[in-house]
Amino acid sequence: MTMFETAPRTRDLQARLTAFMEEHIYPNEAEFHRQVNTGHRWEHVELIEELKPKARAEGLWNLFLPPASDPQGKFGPGLSNLEYAPLCEIMGRVWWAPEVFNCNAPDTGNMEVFARYGTPEQQEQWLTPLLNGEIRSAFSMTEPEVASSDATNIESSITRDGDEYVINGRKWWTSGAGDPRCKISIFMGKTDPNAERHLQQSMVLVPMDTPGVSIERMLTVFGYDDAPHGHAEMTFENVRVPASNMLLGEGRGFEIAQGRLGPGRIHHCMRLIGQAERALELTVERASQRVAFGKPLAAHQHVREAIALSRMEIDQARLLTLQAAYMMDTVGNKAARGQIAAIKVVAPNVALRVIDRAIQIHGGAGVSQDSPLPMMYAQARTLRLADGPDIVHTETVAKEELRRQGVDLRRR
Amino acid sequence: MTMFETAPRTRDLQARLTAFMEEHIYPNEAEFHRQVNTGHRWEHVELIEELKPKARAEGLWNLFLPPASDPQGKFGPGLSNLEYAPLCEIMGRVWWAPEVFNCNAPDTGNMEVFARYGTPEQQEQWLTPLLNGEIRSAFSMTEPEVASSDATNIESSITRDGDEYVINGRKWWTSGAGDPRCKISIFMGKTDPNAERHLQQSMVLVPMDTPGVSIERMLTVFGYDDAPHGHAEMTFENVRVPASNMLLGEGRGFEIAQGRLGPGRIHHCMRLIGQAERALELTVERASQRVAFGKPLAAHQHVREAIALSRMEIDQARLLTLQAAYMMDTVGNKAARGQIAAIKVVAPNVALRVIDRAIQIHGGAGVSQDSPLPMMYAQARTLRLADGPDIVHTETVAKEELRRQGVDLRRR
Amino acid sequence: MTMFETAPRTRDLQARLTAFMEEHIYPNEAEFHRQVNTGHRWEHVELIEELKPKARAEGLWNLFLPPASDPQGKFGPGLSNLEYAPLCEIMGRVWWAPEVFNCNAPDTGNMEVFARYGTPEQQEQWLTPLLNGEIRSAFSMTEPEVASSDATNIESSITRDGDEYVINGRKWWTSGAGDPRCKISIFMGKTDPNAERHLQQSMVLVPMDTPGVSIERMLTVFGYDDAPHGHAEMTFENVRVPASNMLLGEGRGFEIAQGRLGPGRIHHCMRLIGQAERALELTVERASQRVAFGKPLAAHQHVREAIALSRMEIDQARLLTLQAAYMMDTVGNKAARGQIAAIKVVAPNVALRVIDRAIQIHGGAGVSQDSPLPMMYAQARTLRLADGPDIVHTETVAKEELRRQGVDLRRR
Amino acid sequence: MTMFETAPRTRDLQARLTAFMEEHIYPNEAEFHRQVNTGHRWEHVELIEELKPKARAEGLWNLFLPPASDPQGKFGPGLSNLEYAPLCEIMGRVWWAPEVFNCNAPDTGNMEVFARYGTPEQQEQWLTPLLNGEIRSAFSMTEPEVASSDATNIESSITRDGDEYVINGRKWWTSGAGDPRCKISIFMGKTDPNAERHLQQSMVLVPMDTPGVSIERMLTVFGYDDAPHGHAEMTFENVRVPASNMLLGEGRGFEIAQGRLGPGRIHHCMRLIGQAERALELTVERASQRVAFGKPLAAHQHVREAIALSRMEIDQARLLTLQAAYMMDTVGNKAARGQIAAIKVVAPNVALRVIDRAIQIHGGAGVSQDSPLPMMYAQARTLRLADGPDIVHTETVAKEELRRQGVDLRRR
Repeated sequence: MTMFETAPRTRDLQARLTAFMEEHIYPNEAEFHRQVNTGHRWEHVELIEELKPKARAEGLWNLFLPPASDPQGKFGPGLSNLEYAPLCEIMGRVWWAPEVFNCNAPDTGNMEVFARYGTPEQQEQWLTPLLNGEIRSAFSMTEPEVASSDATNIESSITRDGDEYVINGRKWWTSGAGDPRCKISIFMGKTDPNAERHLQQSMVLVPMDTPGVSIERMLTVFGYDDAPHGHAEMTFENVRVPASNMLLGEGRGFEIAQGRLGPGRIHHCMRLIGQAERALELTVERASQRVAFGKPLAAHQHVREAIALSRMEIDQARLLTLQAAYMMDTVGNKAARGQIAAIKVVAPNVALRVIDRAIQIHGGAGVSQDSPLPMMYAQARTLRLADGPDIVHTETVAKEELRRQGVDLRRR
Repeated sequence: MTMFETAPRTRDLQARLTAFMEEHIYPNEAEFHRQVNTGHRWEHVELIEELKPKARAEGLWNLFLPPASDPQGKFGPGLSNLEYAPLCEIMGRVWWAPEVFNCNAPDTGNMEVFARYGTPEQQEQWLTPLLNGEIRSAFSMTEPEVASSDATNIESSITRDGDEYVINGRKWWTSGAGDPRCKISIFMGKTDPNAERHLQQSMVLVPMDTPGVSIERMLTVFGYDDAPHGHAEMTFENVRVPASNMLLGEGRGFEIAQGRLGPGRIHHCMRLIGQAERALELTVERASQRVAFGKPLAAHQHVREAIALSRMEIDQARLLTLQAAYMMDTVGNKAARGQIAAIKVVAPNVALRVIDRAIQIHGGAGVSQDSPLPMMYAQARTLRLADGPDIVHTETVAKEELRRQGVDLRRR
Repeated sequence: MTMFETAPRTRDLQARLTAFMEEHIYPNEAEFHRQVNTGHRWEHVELIEELKPKARAEGLWNLFLPPASDPQGKFGPGLSNLEYAPLCEIMGRVWWAPEVFNCNAPDTGNMEVFARYGTPEQQEQWLTPLLNGEIRSAFSMTEPEVASSDATNIESSITRDGDEYVINGRKWWTSGAGDPRCKISIFMGKTDPNAERHLQQSMVLVPMDTPGVSIERMLTVFGYDDAPHGHAEMTFENVRVPASNMLLGEGRGFEIAQGRLGPGRIHHCMRLIGQAERALELTVERASQRVAFGKPLAAHQHVREAIALSRMEIDQARLLTLQAAYMMDTVGNKAARGQIAAIKVVAPNVALRVIDRAIQIHGGAGVSQDSPLPMMYAQARTLRLADGPDIVHTETVAKEELRRQGVDLRRR
Repeated sequence: MTMFETAPRTRDLQARLTAFMEEHIYPNEAEFHRQVNTGHRWEHVELIEELKPKARAEGLWNLFLPPASDPQGKFGPGLSNLEYAPLCEIMGRVWWAPEVFNCNAPDTGNMEVFARYGTPEQQEQWLTPLLNGEIRSAFSMTEPEVASSDATNIESSITRDGDEYVINGRKWWTSGAGDPRCKISIFMGKTDPNAERHLQQSMVLVPMDTPGVSIERMLTVFGYDDAPHGHAEMTFENVRVPASNMLLGEGRGFEIAQGRLGPGRIHHCMRLIGQAERALELTVERASQRVAFGKPLAAHQHVREAIALSRMEIDQARLLTLQAAYMMDTVGNKAARGQIAAIKVVAPNVALRVIDRAIQIHGGAGVSQDSPLPMMYAQARTLRLADGPDIVHTETVAKEELRRQGVDLRRR
């Protein structure tokens, strides 16, 4: 196997996944929206449930868990990040497709947390049905009142009271909470406001049907509500859960967050590459069919320049993402933090530029419901903010580069 | 009056308009959305109707018609483009505000067409109630099947049959057609497919309630339907109107389109400057209040860089727009075509960059319904396509520059 | 006079200046380089001396001094900044042309200092021959050892000793010092290191032939030495000058620097617009003559896009510069600091982009001695650093914008 | 060996090459310029000759020839493009270093031509001394009068006359011709103007001392003459060479050019990555040492942003270059043409942005002779033109993408 070859196992899965997409996903894109837009928007989509067993039967299921999170291969096939990346990219081409393969956010990140940090009881209760795709989950971290890009700012409280924890706080951008099958949320809050800064936070499991848990409203992204998945603003008022719902131990929330966010970020980047690749395909398709000023769009030089620029940017972003995956596999998520930060900046920005060029070449159709492009754009735009805004990751890249060259600003 | 001073008449109107915005528009932004989102979305908004008489009573009404279109001052106060520009900018700061002053698209462009090209009968029937804000209008030009950036591509047919014209075709992006008060559409189509290329098109008046006129669906823009105004896809099947509904004469549609689009474009640019200016204000407000990593956002250098960059880009775009207005006033819309083309490229792109920076500094709130920013973005993005995509205007700027230096590519 | 009109006096001067350029400057561009490259490079250029009396005879002389610096009109025709701007732009089209009109840096800035702050004796000794173009001058401020973008960092010492000042220090980027006719330098240094931060600096006049003044070497800019003008690194070792050579008084150096730099900056910006305009002309000329792939370059869409983009950027930068000039004329240099800072960022960057596009369209010729473009590029690039790097001015623009909206970061 | 690992052989050579650079190249940078600037500029540099045997003794010699050009390993160690890339990058960090390792342009490209297409006699006469570093060579293709980006435009004539060819033409940008040790030029011209378009050209060997060969002048790049290597404008007047000097056969010049340019381009890209990497190192060094506004530059956020952006861009450009190298090794230069075209656009543009940021952070020093940055910039800028301007390669990338998706514009 040489430098830019793909592992045989991945190549085989790529082929089967592509075939599945062509048989079951692309032909159903309109059907998905039809089901969501019929009747109550916040119901689980039947189409997804029909496709899941098919995907599972073909072995296209739970591909996301790397050996580091599942060393004994109990939960999945045990692909490395580098092996999973090209598969995640393919799934990412249609925004609702990953769930068909049980590989969608935030469930993948949550399952990884359960796999790494859950007790056997927690795993049995929540990880097993999640791995089976029977329930969905949420991750309640971001708060409207504080700049949540710094996790130490989180202000919700988790207070021990006998055998229980009492939880209070307001969260938003709790993605996936719109789906009625979402049964469990991993909640981050402060157990000890007086502890050392990185030891104040804890993560605790909060079943969605616990008294005091309320969805206040669903947020929109540009004009999309992303139903039935959705992004909730939620309140937690004197919510009581058993003490055994604590993850890993009090004060270890920041540690879990750090461990969870790396893989979550690279999965987003892989999917963004897939979105960009698809936007470029749509561009070429449009450019070859639509005629303006007497010749196909592709016969206009500015259209070809757009196509070439997108190709060059996508290829670079993909290679950088694969390199980050390789680093995660070989030196670990922590040592790869500079590489993860870099792709978290590069991938959404590249995807946005590629999608934007695609929109421009599609004309009016490109901003309308006739095209997946504007929704792609809205989602990619959010990813310049979600899991930390560009500047936070840019600072990480800079810090790593300074460190690499022996510069430590703190000593000055 | 020196070079960069504003005319006293404009300064007075600026002050009164700003006061009106502060008293009646900004405080009602949430109310507007509440009214639209309550019950049936496609009803005329009561709030607008309450505010219109107030604006009219204060003389903030029909400010858009330049002397060239209304030489005798019959229809409005007769502000020049240069005088109107700073006012249009202020109205543009809130997307639904221009209608309060009867200065919204596409009605302004349509009223200008009626004023310049309408017969007294057509003016009485349609222009008078439009100037009174009693009815709304639409402009049916763009077609889904052809690249409508070249108006000569329009394929709908207008066929003479006795004392009537019979109209057939499919149109989309017919903005304003969602409002039940929209009563009249100016329809562009071919009367003579065999005529010289610029003489094939005509414009004819089609009352919205004419049999055969159907709204097939409302289009979305990045998830927004812009209700109740909206953007319709419409079919016209064997629609019959009296021959007297023809505007200016058969074969003169392209000529009217050219005359109509210049002012329409500069109005859009003025409003975009207003949107950008408001986005920058929101940015500064957010940057001074939100704290991250222990200090206000504005204390972070990258935030200040964003603010400075937006300020520099807005100021340049505004000056270019004012210069184009001045050229339209002094040498006419046709000779100013290079300047109009330039702002049609510059203003939306500047607005998009400014709004995008504002979104980034707002974090998650910036893409949600809590902020006007994402809808601003969606609308500004559309204006890189509407009335001709960037490349078409870029070509015009290049052609004018080549011509200015004596280069004529056609002779080579 | 309306908003975008040019004053009649300026229009007349524009016409005469353009005629002079066409008759005497453009045809002599090769001759200038021939004279410089023949024999010793660091001699005053004969061609310049031949043209000066012609320019003076035509009234194209000392046009730079605004009424604020010369209220009684003793020294020049008294054009406002807004009137001078379009003239300075024309002169700027050829890098050595401004000296022919006695309007070149750093002499204009120095003459402005003498006019505003010089004693009658200082004016007679130095300003009179400068205004006559008989001698040249230098401005010794920047030091190699400190970040001179903050003038308070300047470390050279000026120490009183009886009736004399003793000067010690190392300066670089002392432009104009290469010319043997450069007779006087305005030297900035510290008279009182213990004074309040903005009162430590003073400016003192140092004749170039004073013992202890040495030119150590001439600096290059992208390989160019800009002979015979040049940029010197100089040492001042125990240089003694009479106490009467102090400008304005001890401790007022920072004040003079602030007053000097505003006009100097806008002159640079005006010249940069001229350079950009010329680069665009060369682009169009090349694009209409050179054939590639069977048609003139201008028939390739990417070339037309480059031309249009340059036209749009230049027009915006010019308007912003004119607006800054208008503000300087009407509210004064200090209140116009935000506008001056903005153009100091915008103009060099626009010029660089325009020149870079021109180079690309010229192919190999565009980087060689056959074209003025690479030297233009080198000079424009320097102006993103000289008189303060981009970031310093960007910060000023941001600070002014925050202040305008009532945000004061220092109070937080 | 996994995806992003480097081959052991390369790792070993990297280490030894880096050690050589640190011991012999970096410490001699000033000495190189001292030798060139002392006395006659167009003499071979003694320093290079002293270092060559050292490099050769350490096995750091002729590393550039891939197995495809030297299948029997007669001429060098036979590194693949992928193995050579990281080494070429290291050499590229100092512009004159590649020659020390006999890996400099245009000699590498010429040696590859001799290796692939030369007769045993031609190889003995010219390739052997080139491989020994005893002589230097030139490549005479580009002509001032035609857009040479399209090789079929070349107009020089090569006419058979008995046992000789008679050569006439004017060439420029003949790099390396300034060195008195340059003994042979590969000359491209037309043997049959009436042949099919790609069969008109031939390449013939012209010893530099043949009567009728004249160097008219040396071209500058920005202000640099790149002595003693240099870029010549040359005339060939009735130059006669034996018929045996023809390469490969009449009419095969275009074919050789295509084969030669691919490797030449990727070598340039590898060296550009090295230049960019070095510019970033200099940036970090400066940023950690220079103080402005009371803290090191690196403590200013905009400096860290610049560092991070450069790191992200360099890493992407390197990966893309390595992928192109891998494709050349595995599918061949022709099938890899899309990848080669992509890096030919990406690498110079990335290098220019990185170097430009470095210049900005260096302040005035960054444009002067005290820094290698401005010369780096000048050379990188030329590479957006040399071997084809950006747009030509952009078109190739677009064409490959369209082809990949089954779109053939010619059939329309």
